[in-house]
Amino acid sequence: MKATLLQDSQLLYEPNYEPVPIESAIEVEVLQAGICETDLQLIQGYMGFAGVLGHEFVGIAKSGKYQGQRVAGEINCACGDCECCAQSLPNHCPNRTVIGILNHDGAFAERVWVPEENLHPIPDSVSDDQAVFVEPLAAAFQIPAQLDLSDFQNVIVLGDGRLGNLCAQVLQGYKKSPLVIGKHPEKLERLAKLGIDTELLSEVSETRFSDLVVDCTGSPSGLTTAYRLIKPRGTIVLKSTYAGDHSPNLAPIVIDELNLVGSRCGPFPMAIEALAASEIDVDRLVTSRFPIEESIKAFQVAQQKDQLKVILKVKDNDSDTE
Amino acid sequence: MKATLLQDSQLLYEPNYEPVPIESAIEVEVLQAGICETDLQLIQGYMGFAGVLGHEFVGIAKSGKYQGQRVAGEINCACGDCECCAQSLPNHCPNRTVIGILNHDGAFAERVWVPEENLHPIPDSVSDDQAVFVEPLAAAFQIPAQLDLSDFQNVIVLGDGRLGNLCAQVLQGYKKSPLVIGKHPEKLERLAKLGIDTELLSEVSETRFSDLVVDCTGSPSGLTTAYRLIKPRGTIVLKSTYAGDHSPNLAPIVIDELNLVGSRCGPFPMAIEALAASEIDVDRLVTSRFPIEESIKAFQVAQQKDQLKVILKVKDNDSDTE
Ligand SMILES: [Zn+2]
Ligand SMILES: [Zn+2]
Ligand SMILES: [Zn+2]
Ligand SMILES: [Zn+2]
Repeated sequence: MKATLLQDSQLLYEPNYEPVPIESAIEVEVLQAGICETDLQLIQGYMGFAGVLGHEFVGIAKSGKYQGQRVAGEINCACGDCECCAQSLPNHCPNRTVIGILNHDGAFAERVWVPEENLHPIPDSVSDDQAVFVEPLAAAFQIPAQLDLSDFQNVIVLGDGRLGNLCAQVLQGYKKSPLVIGKHPEKLERLAKLGIDTELLSEVSETRFSDLVVDCTGSPSGLTTAYRLIKPRGTIVLKSTYAGDHSPNLAPIVIDELNLVGSRCGPFPMAIEALAASEIDVDRLVTSRFPIEESIKAFQVAQQKDQLKVILKVKDNDSDTE
Repeated sequence: MKATLLQDSQLLYEPNYEPVPIESAIEVEVLQAGICETDLQLIQGYMGFAGVLGHEFVGIAKSGKYQGQRVAGEINCACGDCECCAQSLPNHCPNRTVIGILNHDGAFAERVWVPEENLHPIPDSVSDDQAVFVEPLAAAFQIPAQLDLSDFQNVIVLGDGRLGNLCAQVLQGYKKSPLVIGKHPEKLERLAKLGIDTELLSEVSETRFSDLVVDCTGSPSGLTTAYRLIKPRGTIVLKSTYAGDHSPNLAPIVIDELNLVGSRCGPFPMAIEALAASEIDVDRLVTSRFPIEESIKAFQVAQQKDQLKVILKVKDNDSDTE
């Protein structure tokens, strides 16, 4: 099958990749998939991954209870047997595989194998493009899943990229009027069109007094910027993982008694419902699309600063009215 | 007056130090004071402090509403005028001085000047020795002040020093049965005598599944040890500040969705009540005592691994029946 993979740290497109079916999982025929910041980190060596990339996808289930339906898939595949799994923390199972990230071939391919419990059906009112955003949008909905947002009045999102945009929209939906601080005027403009307050990082002069800062910068500098903007006893949500070893100083955490909350994958049902209800605008986040055969080029484009979401088209969906 | 100070990064004892009275504050005649881990960091350059050291003390108020009574003093002296102060966060006032730590002469001296609102009277049932522990014990009580301890079942304290000991006793008082992990068999033995579970760091082999780890190691390695012991979504309380710039990697915070809570100064009334009710045993924490004239030697002793609390005696308290 066609597949885009990372092999010996090299990104390559392989038209005749031999898939290894996972007996216990459901075969999903991939329609399309999105390139995400994590993919860009993976090709730089994050996690030391080798195999088929891709973890934001929509496809058609070939068997099981969703057979013939469009589905999105949660990416953490738990063992079901360990203490984490017993405590209902499957996303943290130490034996887990992670689709397209850890020991599990991903969705930049014609087929991907996903445990049935990870699958979520996509309602007709959600387009294929929108469905590709279910996974990253779920990560944004992890913020209200982890925190009681009623505790916070003055909310800042750092980063105007894909994840920052989605987190800002989710927080806006919770009436938190977030301020997005970013480096890219054109990306901030997209947010402003949604009625979200924005500011250029270079123009943030005064010390702000925020009680919640969400770091979506994907860079160690995000946390040090957060230190400048947060009030004492405030909460910083850390969404950024990055390859390499550049850790910011932790003294402000203790001195200002900050609360640093790591946040990763989130609840798919909340994301699917929000998309179905048109509460989140993802359509203007798609900046480019390529057929899977042009994956290498698609990755090059995805790394350009003006890009938000780049979509890889794997198969035409007859039922889709594009 | 006699005073022990840090001048040009040098620790020195000065028999004829000329104090600078603070008009708006209360003059307190110091009875005795304790040397703390922060003092040991300060003489290594932390905060770049210069002036009289000492922030854990008991003395006699010379005027004001506690005139003639024994008092302990909160160390953060707020401006009363800024947004932090308006939001009842005086301990975080950006214009604050901190007694013996930041722009405010401390209590290793015959007299110290303390704002009246920072003073707390010491009941007769609390000895001078015990009163010296009010400040560090308040820091330990900051843990239940910040967190709802009913959320946690499996609690670990990292570090068997002064602060680790007090945090463990406070958590024990909340029926949390903490396990203290430390490097010093003799210090762990003191905790075991109080009925607290202990384990040598070198013998911690298995991966534990704690939901609350309190880092009192005073070392960057504390956080990396905490990563090994904490369960996903668990909470790490960071009590450690340290001079220098050795920050642990933050990726586990995001990947394991940990909650890192910085914790510093705490509520004096809780500490005083617990001491008055004999709920906390601090007497066996005093390992050495010196007259203020022997401060230099006292600091040398305080840096020895077998020491817990070293007390500097400034003035004999006639009312004390030692
Ligand atoms: Zn992603
Ligand atoms: Zn498991
Ligand atoms: Zn101290
Ligand atoms: Zn103030």
